[in-house]
Amino acid sequence: MKVKDIGEIALVERLARRIRLDPSVLLGIGDDAAVIQWTKEAHMLFACDMLLEGVHFTLAHATPFQIGWKALAVNISDIAAMGGVPKYAVVSIGIDPGRQVSFVDGIYRGLRSLARKFSVSIVGGDTNRSRKLVIDVALIGTVEKERLTRRSGARAGDVILVTGALGGSIKGRHLTFLPRLREARALVQDFRVSSMIDVSDGLVLDLWRILRASSCGGRIYETCVPVSRDADSFGAAITDGEDFELLFTMEPREARRFFREALAGFGTDVHLIGQVLGEKEGLTLVTGDGSMKALKPEGYAHF
Amino acid sequence: MKVKDIGEIALVERLARRIRLDPSVLLGIGDDAAVIQWTKEAHMLFACDMLLEGVHFTLAHATPFQIGWKALAVNISDIAAMGGVPKYAVVSIGIDPGRQVSFVDGIYRGLRSLARKFSVSIVGGDTNRSRKLVIDVALIGTVEKERLTRRSGARAGDVILVTGALGGSIKGRHLTFLPRLREARALVQDFRVSSMIDVSDGLVLDLWRILRASSCGGRIYETCVPVSRDADSFGAAITDGEDFELLFTMEPREARRFFREALAGFGTDVHLIGQVLGEKEGLTLVTGDGSMKALKPEGYAHF
Repeated sequence: MKVKDIGEIALVERLARRIRLDPSVLLGIGDDAAVIQWTKEAHMLFACDMLLEGVHFTLAHATPFQIGWKALAVNISDIAAMGGVPKYAVVSIGIDPGRQVSFVDGIYRGLRSLARKFSVSIVGGDTNRSRKLVIDVALIGTVEKERLTRRSGARAGDVILVTGALGGSIKGRHLTFLPRLREARALVQDFRVSSMIDVSDGLVLDLWRILRASSCGGRIYETCVPVSRDADSFGAAITDGEDFELLFTMEPREARRFFREALAGFGTDVHLIGQVLGEKEGLTLVTGDGSMKALKPEGYAHF
Repeated sequence: MKVKDIGEIALVERLARRIRLDPSVLLGIGDDAAVIQWTKEAHMLFACDMLLEGVHFTLAHATPFQIGWKALAVNISDIAAMGGVPKYAVVSIGIDPGRQVSFVDGIYRGLRSLARKFSVSIVGGDTNRSRKLVIDVALIGTVEKERLTRRSGARAGDVILVTGALGGSIKGRHLTFLPRLREARALVQDFRVSSMIDVSDGLVLDLWRILRASSCGGRIYETCVPVSRDADSFGAAITDGEDFELLFTMEPREARRFFREALAGFGTDVHLIGQVLGEKEGLTLVTGDGSMKALKPEGYAHF
């Protein structure tokens, strides 16, 4: 059996299998970031994300600045999705020795620029030669214990919400997006968010991850899902990868309070797109004409 | 100007330039690991190291198990060189989708096997498609404040010591080595070690890094340097990369105490190979016939 036959989810699960974890590890592989005991008040978060030339960007369509920016942005997005604050990053780069130094400087400027914006300290690095450009960032964050937001906290009856608009990120947004850190922090500081994830592999797949981790089913409404002007179709909008929007769940009362009290000052659109149901309900789409369509966990597949 | 023209040292320094660090960062880019404020008693360490197919290993000469093992081992070696204990790792892998799943499982077994040996928890991972195999591990460790050992603590008058024997690691040892964690901990727990580094890019280059960070010069003796049976020559032994031995300095009195009290139970050879001198002395080799030869900072170059 080949890697492409089992897919990314099963592949990561194979790594997680039979791994021995220290008791201080509260959450290992399987969420946007690992959660580790730290102080009395706060946990430590730990995540990594690798970008590869030809997969996550091409040199024809991305500037070095954008590549550096994106390499850190995807990681900050992971920490944000746990309700946390990013703190310390290390950066490993593989690069063609024949590249101009100005090219590398551009990548570094992109990294530094976003790091400054969100007060992230880049504390370490490793450089190697590689024909194809590859950048891997590992990021440590922190989160107050009561604000930690996992994928697994959704409950039947909760409503499903999403920031921004979905789809077509590949047309450029995926290289320039600002991670929803401010929004995530505003949410977890002032509201009870039952579960959260960042939409990296498409709405359907990432919603499926929340529902599976929470042992729930769910329903989304075609008329409620915010579709980006860049999206080619509704179907593309809910399966395109790299939106990096926040997908989260709340009790309906809490969501009403959010729309009443906070949305005006929030600065980013938030849409209520569906409901969490019992596990047996599976995941369904209510189309514009009211018919029901079962959704499979499909989205951006790395293999 | 191209990346290959400026070399790895200058490249990493370009990343470090103009980086804004949080006051909690006690040591950023420029040692084996970053040092971050953590608790009253201990600091946090943070390091990363990327392995690339065709650079750090070839599929013709390394088993998947060995590749996974080495990916974690080089990082544990970095934490050991700071006097610390490794704790939590995240692993990013880029792999050809056409590879057998058993190949990936082999890599994971190598990672897990070493992780268990040193009680490291693998808490996160990212998988991507890539024609050439690439693995990047980021590792968090801890070190008691008084046991933190930096590159910069060497003082004129100290003696220079090294574990094991040097050179020819490429013939196989670089894929199977056990990081010198037990040895490093025994050293920092029971003795005053003024500076330490792991020999990853060859004795001459890594000793030069210690001396430069410490604003010192130094001298090593050809007759004292332990040469591995795998080394092709003395010149190779002192410049070959990937020994992953510990190179450290101590006051002469402390070194005498170490040889008298501890070496017997240490389990690994330790050799006194030279002396730290004033900065103006540069770095010299005293050859077998007593003549002096200036050493340039040359060793394994990534570019």
